[in-house]
Amino acid sequence: MAKGTILLSVTGFDPATWCAELEKAAPDRKVVTEPAGANDPDIEYAVVWKQRRGVLNGLPNLKAIFSIGAGVDHIFAEDELPDVPIVRAIADDLTERMSEYVAWQVLDHHRKGPLYREQQARRLWHEDIMQPAARDVTVGILGYGTLGRDAGRKLRTLGFEVVGWSRREKTGEKIDVFTGDNGLNQFLAVADIVVCLLPLTPATRGILSARLFDRMKRRGPLGAPILINAGRGGLQKEADIIAALEDGRLGAVSLDVFETEPLPEDSRLWNHPRVTITPHAAATSMPHALVPPMIEQMEAHDRGEPLRNVVDREAGY
Amino acid sequence: MAKGTILLSVTGFDPATWCAELEKAAPDRKVVTEPAGANDPDIEYAVVWKQRRGVLNGLPNLKAIFSIGAGVDHIFAEDELPDVPIVRAIADDLTERMSEYVAWQVLDHHRKGPLYREQQARRLWHEDIMQPAARDVTVGILGYGTLGRDAGRKLRTLGFEVVGWSRREKTGEKIDVFTGDNGLNQFLAVADIVVCLLPLTPATRGILSARLFDRMKRRGPLGAPILINAGRGGLQKEADIIAALEDGRLGAVSLDVFETEPLPEDSRLWNHPRVTITPHAAATSMPHALVPPMIEQMEAHDRGEPLRNVVDREAGY
Ligand SMILES: NC(=O)c1ccc[n+]([C@@H]2O[C@H](COP(=O)([O-])OP(=O)(O)OC[C@H]3O[C@@H](n4cnc5c(N)ncnc54)[C@H](OP(=O)(O)O)[C@@H]3O)[C@@H](O)[C@H]2O)c1
Ligand SMILES: NC(=O)c1ccc[n+]([C@@H]2O[C@H](COP(=O)([O-])OP(=O)(O)OC[C@H]3O[C@@H](n4cnc5c(N)ncnc54)[C@H](OP(=O)(O)O)[C@@H]3O)[C@@H](O)[C@H]2O)c1
Repeated sequence: MAKGTILLSVTGFDPATWCAELEKAAPDRKVVTEPAGANDPDIEYAVVWKQRRGVLNGLPNLKAIFSIGAGVDHIFAEDELPDVPIVRAIADDLTERMSEYVAWQVLDHHRKGPLYREQQARRLWHEDIMQPAARDVTVGILGYGTLGRDAGRKLRTLGFEVVGWSRREKTGEKIDVFTGDNGLNQFLAVADIVVCLLPLTPATRGILSARLFDRMKRRGPLGAPILINAGRGGLQKEADIIAALEDGRLGAVSLDVFETEPLPEDSRLWNHPRVTITPHAAATSMPHALVPPMIEQMEAHDRGEPLRNVVDREAGY
Repeated sequence: MAKGTILLSVTGFDPATWCAELEKAAPDRKVVTEPAGANDPDIEYAVVWKQRRGVLNGLPNLKAIFSIGAGVDHIFAEDELPDVPIVRAIADDLTERMSEYVAWQVLDHHRKGPLYREQQARRLWHEDIMQPAARDVTVGILGYGTLGRDAGRKLRTLGFEVVGWSRREKTGEKIDVFTGDNGLNQFLAVADIVVCLLPLTPATRGILSARLFDRMKRRGPLGAPILINAGRGGLQKEADIIAALEDGRLGAVSLDVFETEPLPEDSRLWNHPRVTITPHAAATSMPHALVPPMIEQMEAHDRGEPLRNVVDREAGY
């Protein structure tokens, strides 16, 4: 019997590269792309990233949906979804890239990158002797999951104090991981740098807003707290971020994700002196790293084995 | 019997802070500073950083010289030196700060900081999809000693491949550590990013010159090789660095140290688009971290115990 067909529906990534990688990893499967292939009755698996709205419905033999990225908010954005498992991406390559980004941005703020670059532009030789050591700085990670935990471990190797915040209680962690709104207060009371690696769900949407900035530390060893968001743009209220930068509740921010992407040309974030912008590039899903484990999961599922990394529809991630 | 007096002779650091820290850590010792104190016949220990030339001679009871920093090239710059042990600084605080700097600069180049900042200034949303993973990038550390080894370990945690280069053969290392001029060729054949943490000695002076850049890789995953120097300015030939940036042998450089410090205002390095400058701030010696171990060593020496971290006069570090 022929193996089930794979439907690829992606925007923002180059479909040809993903298609080629799928065909290489699953030479015995048919891979169809949109729009022509979407009506193929043999589609059993869908591989998607910001798929065309509605494409997942009306596939009679669909067995599972695979997200190309760690986040699945683009899938839950559908009005209606077939009742099949949704599998999120987990891969060392992806996790490690995110930790690179987090360590890079944490160090750039910790070591006063913006200040030294501004001084260089003015040919000014001046050491900021208020440089704290990493051990004097606490990085708080909002969302202590696959990505947050790896980033936290690496930040600790670099010497930083680390705390986390997650939905469910954690046991056996080497650091304090807080939960709930009270836990968030405890977290914010110690965090000098807040790194957001939360998924976008109904419970987390807009969490990076005035209500959170008001509860942050006033001053720490680096001055006012610093915010780094590499989760999703929907987690942040950009107007609130700008207001908090203006009145000094936030010292600086690094944003990889935005309410609207690409970030509109007239956004005030672009040329704000204390904003670092990257174009949703913190941890890009690489086909060579992500396709082979997806295919393995399809094979396992066909053999009747359970799928791993299935998202919880109730929780939304 | 009264304990021996300490002479403090520093430039570039604030003597008052160091004096206060010495007095706090050694309340039973007299601490004298220049110029008044330099003739005190009870001086047994000198604590120095770019000391006034000649101040170390003519001290009849001098037992040892302590450098405030890891480097001792400022001491060997004297025409004549008393025949007493020279002790270099080793402290976790200092080592960790250097590793912060190295990780920061390596990540900034690896993650295309200069490119993304330039794009931000132009309000340009464009992901560089040629982003390699850390595991695809080899960082070569010239000078695999106290600082180089710690930086290397942390870079490996961040996922980078690491190789080293030292004067003497190493055994039991987890990475390849090359030695000698042939070893340098092997090192340069693999290094995508070269981090220099060598001491300045007659053997290393000017090593970062055309002769070395000519032997580097042509292209790696980040393009032409990147140079980061946080050792000493005397290790580099700035005219050769600029020439290598211009003709593409070097992709970019980060320099914390310079042939002349402060870097002269008319240096072409200041506004070169592929040069990152920090004002000899990679790892600053902090009195609270460095004074207590110095005092402990003086106490131990007074009890007849051997001094640790004594530099080799022959090797010059
Ligand atoms: N910018 C980029 O390039 C990029 C790349 C990849 C991923 N991402 C984003 O990163 C996100 C995280 O990825 P991941 O792999 O780490 O996901 P994950 O393993 O599911 O971890 C998510 C973490 O967030 C916590 N969390 C979820 N809802 C919460 C709530 N309401 N309150 C408190 N904590 C909550 C979870 O708590 P529990 O531990 O209790 O479940 C978990 O610790 C993705 O969803 C995606 O949006 C961005
Ligand atoms: N920019 C800053 O803020 C800052 C701060 C602190 C220190 N520094 C600089 O960093 C330097 C290194 O400090 P460290 O504590 O790591 O010193 P270290 O422990 O003495 O290590 C020096 C390393 O360089 C190697 N080396 C020396 N001469 C060599 C030669 N001719 N050929 C090949 N390798 C050679 C040594 O080889 P062996 O292992 O065989 O001895 C050793 O691996 C200091 O000397 C100082 O100049 C700069």
